[in-house]
Amino acid sequence: MKLWDKGISVNKKIEEFTVGRDRELDVLLAPFDIMGTIAHITMLESVGLLSKSDLDQLIPELKALYIKSENGEFEIEDGIEDVHSQVELLLTRKLGDIGKKVHSGRSRNDQVLLDLKLYIRHRIHDVVIAVNNLFDVLQAKSEEHKDVLIPGYTHLQVAMPSSFGLWFGAFAESLVDDLHMLQAAWKTANQNPLGAAAGYGSSFPLDRKLTTQLLGFDDLNYNVVYAQMGRGKTERTVAYALSSIATTVGKLAIDGCLYTSQNFGFLKLPDELTTGSSIMPHKKNPDVFELLRARCNRLQALPESIGMITANLPTGYFRDLQLIKEQFLPAFDELIDCLEIATFAIKNIKVTQDVMKDEKYQLAFSVEEVNKLVLQGVPFRDAYKQVGEQIQKGAFKTDYKVKHTHEGSIGNLCTSEIKSKKELVISEFSFNEVANAVEKLVR
Amino acid sequence: MKLWDKGISVNKKIEEFTVGRDRELDVLLAPFDIMGTIAHITMLESVGLLSKSDLDQLIPELKALYIKSENGEFEIEDGIEDVHSQVELLLTRKLGDIGKKVHSGRSRNDQVLLDLKLYIRHRIHDVVIAVNNLFDVLQAKSEEHKDVLIPGYTHLQVAMPSSFGLWFGAFAESLVDDLHMLQAAWKTANQNPLGAAAGYGSSFPLDRKLTTQLLGFDDLNYNVVYAQMGRGKTERTVAYALSSIATTVGKLAIDGCLYTSQNFGFLKLPDELTTGSSIMPHKKNPDVFELLRARCNRLQALPESIGMITANLPTGYFRDLQLIKEQFLPAFDELIDCLEIATFAIKNIKVTQDVMKDEKYQLAFSVEEVNKLVLQGVPFRDAYKQVGEQIQKGAFKTDYKVKHTHEGSIGNLCTSEIKSKKELVISEFSFNEVANAVEKLVR
Amino acid sequence: MKLWDKGISVNKKIEEFTVGRDRELDVLLAPFDIMGTIAHITMLESVGLLSKSDLDQLIPELKALYIKSENGEFEIEDGIEDVHSQVELLLTRKLGDIGKKVHSGRSRNDQVLLDLKLYIRHRIHDVVIAVNNLFDVLQAKSEEHKDVLIPGYTHLQVAMPSSFGLWFGAFAESLVDDLHMLQAAWKTANQNPLGAAAGYGSSFPLDRKLTTQLLGFDDLNYNVVYAQMGRGKTERTVAYALSSIATTVGKLAIDGCLYTSQNFGFLKLPDELTTGSSIMPHKKNPDVFELLRARCNRLQALPESIGMITANLPTGYFRDLQLIKEQFLPAFDELIDCLEIATFAIKNIKVTQDVMKDEKYQLAFSVEEVNKLVLQGVPFRDAYKQVGEQIQKGAFKTDYKVKHTHEGSIGNLCTSEIKSKKELVISEFSFNEVANAVEKLVR
Amino acid sequence: MKLWDKGISVNKKIEEFTVGRDRELDVLLAPFDIMGTIAHITMLESVGLLSKSDLDQLIPELKALYIKSENGEFEIEDGIEDVHSQVELLLTRKLGDIGKKVHSGRSRNDQVLLDLKLYIRHRIHDVVIAVNNLFDVLQAKSEEHKDVLIPGYTHLQVAMPSSFGLWFGAFAESLVDDLHMLQAAWKTANQNPLGAAAGYGSSFPLDRKLTTQLLGFDDLNYNVVYAQMGRGKTERTVAYALSSIATTVGKLAIDGCLYTSQNFGFLKLPDELTTGSSIMPHKKNPDVFELLRARCNRLQALPESIGMITANLPTGYFRDLQLIKEQFLPAFDELIDCLEIATFAIKNIKVTQDVMKDEKYQLAFSVEEVNKLVLQGVPFRDAYKQVGEQIQKGAFKTDYKVKHTHEGSIGNLCTSEIKSKKELVISEFSFNEVANAVEKLVR
Repeated sequence: MKLWDKGISVNKKIEEFTVGRDRELDVLLAPFDIMGTIAHITMLESVGLLSKSDLDQLIPELKALYIKSENGEFEIEDGIEDVHSQVELLLTRKLGDIGKKVHSGRSRNDQVLLDLKLYIRHRIHDVVIAVNNLFDVLQAKSEEHKDVLIPGYTHLQVAMPSSFGLWFGAFAESLVDDLHMLQAAWKTANQNPLGAAAGYGSSFPLDRKLTTQLLGFDDLNYNVVYAQMGRGKTERTVAYALSSIATTVGKLAIDGCLYTSQNFGFLKLPDELTTGSSIMPHKKNPDVFELLRARCNRLQALPESIGMITANLPTGYFRDLQLIKEQFLPAFDELIDCLEIATFAIKNIKVTQDVMKDEKYQLAFSVEEVNKLVLQGVPFRDAYKQVGEQIQKGAFKTDYKVKHTHEGSIGNLCTSEIKSKKELVISEFSFNEVANAVEKLVR
Repeated sequence: MKLWDKGISVNKKIEEFTVGRDRELDVLLAPFDIMGTIAHITMLESVGLLSKSDLDQLIPELKALYIKSENGEFEIEDGIEDVHSQVELLLTRKLGDIGKKVHSGRSRNDQVLLDLKLYIRHRIHDVVIAVNNLFDVLQAKSEEHKDVLIPGYTHLQVAMPSSFGLWFGAFAESLVDDLHMLQAAWKTANQNPLGAAAGYGSSFPLDRKLTTQLLGFDDLNYNVVYAQMGRGKTERTVAYALSSIATTVGKLAIDGCLYTSQNFGFLKLPDELTTGSSIMPHKKNPDVFELLRARCNRLQALPESIGMITANLPTGYFRDLQLIKEQFLPAFDELIDCLEIATFAIKNIKVTQDVMKDEKYQLAFSVEEVNKLVLQGVPFRDAYKQVGEQIQKGAFKTDYKVKHTHEGSIGNLCTSEIKSKKELVISEFSFNEVANAVEKLVR
Repeated sequence: MKLWDKGISVNKKIEEFTVGRDRELDVLLAPFDIMGTIAHITMLESVGLLSKSDLDQLIPELKALYIKSENGEFEIEDGIEDVHSQVELLLTRKLGDIGKKVHSGRSRNDQVLLDLKLYIRHRIHDVVIAVNNLFDVLQAKSEEHKDVLIPGYTHLQVAMPSSFGLWFGAFAESLVDDLHMLQAAWKTANQNPLGAAAGYGSSFPLDRKLTTQLLGFDDLNYNVVYAQMGRGKTERTVAYALSSIATTVGKLAIDGCLYTSQNFGFLKLPDELTTGSSIMPHKKNPDVFELLRARCNRLQALPESIGMITANLPTGYFRDLQLIKEQFLPAFDELIDCLEIATFAIKNIKVTQDVMKDEKYQLAFSVEEVNKLVLQGVPFRDAYKQVGEQIQKGAFKTDYKVKHTHEGSIGNLCTSEIKSKKELVISEFSFNEVANAVEKLVR
Repeated sequence: MKLWDKGISVNKKIEEFTVGRDRELDVLLAPFDIMGTIAHITMLESVGLLSKSDLDQLIPELKALYIKSENGEFEIEDGIEDVHSQVELLLTRKLGDIGKKVHSGRSRNDQVLLDLKLYIRHRIHDVVIAVNNLFDVLQAKSEEHKDVLIPGYTHLQVAMPSSFGLWFGAFAESLVDDLHMLQAAWKTANQNPLGAAAGYGSSFPLDRKLTTQLLGFDDLNYNVVYAQMGRGKTERTVAYALSSIATTVGKLAIDGCLYTSQNFGFLKLPDELTTGSSIMPHKKNPDVFELLRARCNRLQALPESIGMITANLPTGYFRDLQLIKEQFLPAFDELIDCLEIATFAIKNIKVTQDVMKDEKYQLAFSVEEVNKLVLQGVPFRDAYKQVGEQIQKGAFKTDYKVKHTHEGSIGNLCTSEIKSKKELVISEFSFNEVANAVEKLVR
């Protein structure tokens, strides 16, 4: 059965090519499709397009389906094209012609727009939770090892003393900025497209403000042409935000790969996080960091991949947009997996305590010595020259002491200030409003 | 002269390769470098690292240089490596050794980080102004032509009636969502990195909160390792936001190219906005829309291009990051040009009044007819079938009337609601705070 | 069982993260892994690293496994990490310790390098066949409709007369150039990496020229460090070539979407290749062209996605490289599907015979009229002006005749010359040499 | 003056936006535009579209202009739109109306197509020369240091012994594979588009085979619609090839950055190739390698950037295609600069002789010890276990000897075999045919 079947047999080959992985992916959208349908028919009844008695029969069925879909028990049957058709079919089996009435005043175009926005909202919340967990572990490690020095590099040349306090803490603060992007994605996604129909609105007297409120959206995508234009654009905005978080996690993994090499030896993964070699008995490889890096790099290619699909498409729906789902929907799990594995790895990683004792890092203290002279009144350029000459002659000496006191430095990590920044951003997501509205609608 | 000259002659060829276009690009950063220096030395004096009398000599010189740089009179001399060296050189020429003291407690690394953040803030403000202008023109055109119908397409097949009201208005609302991304970029950029020095802080007792306040930043990049990590990351975040706006303008241009074709004929550019052909005397080509499209598409490749440069770099400064400037700094002008040209083109474009009279668009009214039957009580599927059969038989008739009343539809564009959304977003940029702080600092 | 199991229990979560979809993808590599193993042990025996009697027991087992894998009956069991381990396990079950001997003198690194190269060779051959089929259909259609004129556009403005002969034929010639890229990919892939071991060679006296010959490779990847460096690089080179073909097919689909729109109406898909709308009874949508376009666009993002994973990795194997398989291996089927569907669609597409009668295309003949004057002796600029004035006054007239005779023009399509170009390129792939060597090895 | 000026004054702002950097970039195309014009008018005369006496006046003027353009003395005057107009203007100044006749039978569209193909041919030759130089230096260094061992890494973990012989040599062999891609680009570019006019051919009886032969092209782009379709496609194909070379040079630079770090210390740049730090007196930074890496990474984003501009454009010329020139034309110089700097750096780099003495690399010899046991008859798995246990107990011993003899291994670099592969590829470019044809045409 296909909604648009006009009695013409469709070539099998073409069908496989056009349907693609839609069925499999649409299962992910099922709870959101059902939730949207509940809001839609509640509105239809309120404007007189559905009878009270029809509504009263439909709502319990939909709530039951919602619970099923939440429990992973919703399936799209063979021969059914998508989640929208499947929901309608199940209703019709139970309630006969009443089931068909849920489609009045909407199109599959605004249905899928709505499903995607509700799905995105839900998954952004999941991502924020996973980001928050990693943030906490990073800050804990930063405080735990705040006095353990490591060399700081510029140009991958030993430059100045750094510390594990700074290193772990830097990634925590990076996640805060990533959350700004994710919030922009949230704001873009958390607007109601329902009522756009096929992208040009409807002659039915729909009450779009009511569905907006029922579904807990911040606001409407008012202009129906824009609501449709949001397809592809919303996914790409979200992809930018996911890519931003992935970049932070990826950078953590890049350093992890470097610092676990014998040539650095700053970090050590516990044995259960390493793998061996089929021909080299001494190998313990940091595959976990490498795969974090690779997966995060791949996520960074997602916005461009979406961009290639949407490039130069004129206004209006195109089937091309369906294909975005194949890469987009799984990206959330992909990122959340990375966040969780990174959290796990960081929690269990071992830190080398006495890295700086190695002679090759001695010169990292040269700026400290320059600055000591400056604080004693020697002009900077002269102090710089003086220490430079000591180094040239091999006469450079240091006491290996670092006394940095300003905000964000080795001796003053500002862990709680960074935490406050993070909490401020998270508080600006309207998670509670959404959760309350959804609960009220589906229970 | 180079700050780091250790008396070793550097091969000319290598120098050209390494310095590249730095000098030319650094001129763009001059006002921001000077502004940052004023804040830095004000702070140095407050913590006892600079004498009051030195400060009193330096400030007027720097303010004078600032005005010069604002007026485009700041030059980087031959043989001077970058803007930081040039400023120091000019001060030293005037004030002797006092001039050299401005560099205490900072590195070129945090200087350029600061310059970039100040530059980005300034240019984001410019972008918002240009976006706002285009928004206004789009909304004005949307209201002016709200009753002029055009066909709405799905799959580029004639689908349902749309209108110029919807079409112009859609792009206005699209810009509002783009502003969310730009705001995330603003929040990422509007944090103070000064004090990070080479990325590992300083043993000087810097007061980073003071420079934060003097420069009007929202907050600090606390962790100094993160402050440095912001290089590349900030540019990419901004590039995402610029790319998002470019996507909206590009889509407007895509439609423009299509709708000015003889096969559509919905829009007409005035003669002064078209070009001709060297061999075809009848041609009037919409080069303006094509170049808008192409330039906006090119801007969409910017984040990926930055991403390729930063990919898999470990923590710490690398010279690679300098290269980002070559594509990044000009991107603001590129986008603003596009916004201004689009504003100009939309303002002057002519709209075809009676598009829908063409017979090929008649079937666009079929959904209207289906819905009329539904509102008369016919079940949707039956109404759909009935109209489908009329079409099949060539018996379909319509009165060409469209009565859409819901929010965001042809008859109810919600222009002012969309405007309110836009104003809310713009109000959340801290432009005034920044402008006040800057004025206080440099005048 | 894992080859590198050192008795340490590996966390389940980590295992899932690291193994990923390797098992599923490795099944695709099974025939090539077995083929490579046959060549490897034949060589081992020839240099005295395996006894003749061991070889005689191993070869029949491997040939039997090869046939199984060809028939899709090869499975990787639960708990077995990859195809290499599975093959060794099956041999060991049958032959005991002899089975373990196949791994001497190689590493999983050069095994997977080899498997990929053999897989790529095989799939490039498949792609060439599919390209060739599409080429033939395009040329057939070009000849069939060589006299049917359509407007030629520049800037999407009606410019000059074109024809379906030109239009279909253009894509055929485009495929020829794409084959040059594919041939470069073939040459890159068709070199033997076996013997590189973990990327640094082996102290065993391997005879790499023998395996090169047994497997039908053109030559060796000599330098073992380069052989390993080919991982990622080879996939990206192939991805460039696939992307190039996809660009041609995608462009065909872009035109297809445009030309089937009511605003053009040049082409018509048969009903079984279109889909309908759930709310608009008159719609027949060219989903097939849209999905061709989208899939081909997505394929164009593949090289960049691989590039993000490999960017800035130093020399030597990294686990990151494994992840490339997930997008790379399925890309062949994806492209071949697109080629086959495009072939099917072009074969069945209907062409509008009298497009040019539409008044809006009349001016397309203006250059013809200019040129007629020129051939009568009027200077070009004057002829151009004269016709321009006729157009301005609405007095332009044409006889709708086109007489183009030069190579590649409407009247002289050069179909056979283009076919010869194609055949020349295809003849330069060493398909026969490879097929002969493989047959000799595995039967 | 603009060729298509129809007396309508064009808005200044729009003009700047549309003309962009065309004038500046077109100067690069001047010699090729002139060369193409000589071939075109020679052909025009041969088919009777130009008189012998006109030809005899035009040819010497064009040859003189060609020499000027070769010497960098060709300028595009203010108010002249492009190179084509400038050439015509100069001819008209000298020869009056005869000058205008050079434009018969062609359009600016096929002129620029031709100019680009001729430019690309010329620059590919330059690239091959630069690649060849780097190849030679890499092979020389490989032979010079073939006995100097360094650790070979997998997962950036110390794995097995490698050597500078292998390391330098690997990049040489990588360049050979890159040349295959460049050859595909050459074959795509080296076909004659002249005669395609605006993309739909001409009613003049042009002899396209004659211009093909005069300009030394391998063959024609026959189909005129395809000839036009080659715009954008050709540039992208070339960009893929340049990107491939850039990837090899970039990887060399990545390793260079790593190996010059104090944590590796395998390589040392001479002082004149390093830079210092403004605050750290001990720093010697490998900026040259970093900028090589960054520039090469940026080049890798070029195909995607072109792809974004051309994505989803239907058949026919669009002004968008002009914009590609801005990034594409300079890419050749960018890559050649990188190749030359890399050649210079590799030639002057210093190699550490005794890297392997460091204790942390001892275990790299474990596979050697395993293999020794295997060659003595111990089964591989047992030998692996035995050595593994020695390592576990800290009892592992090695004699630091490596005896690898197979093709491409430490002891058998196959330098001359790799050189032969390179020479074979280079011999397949038709450089001589092109040079001979060009000389005959322009002297």
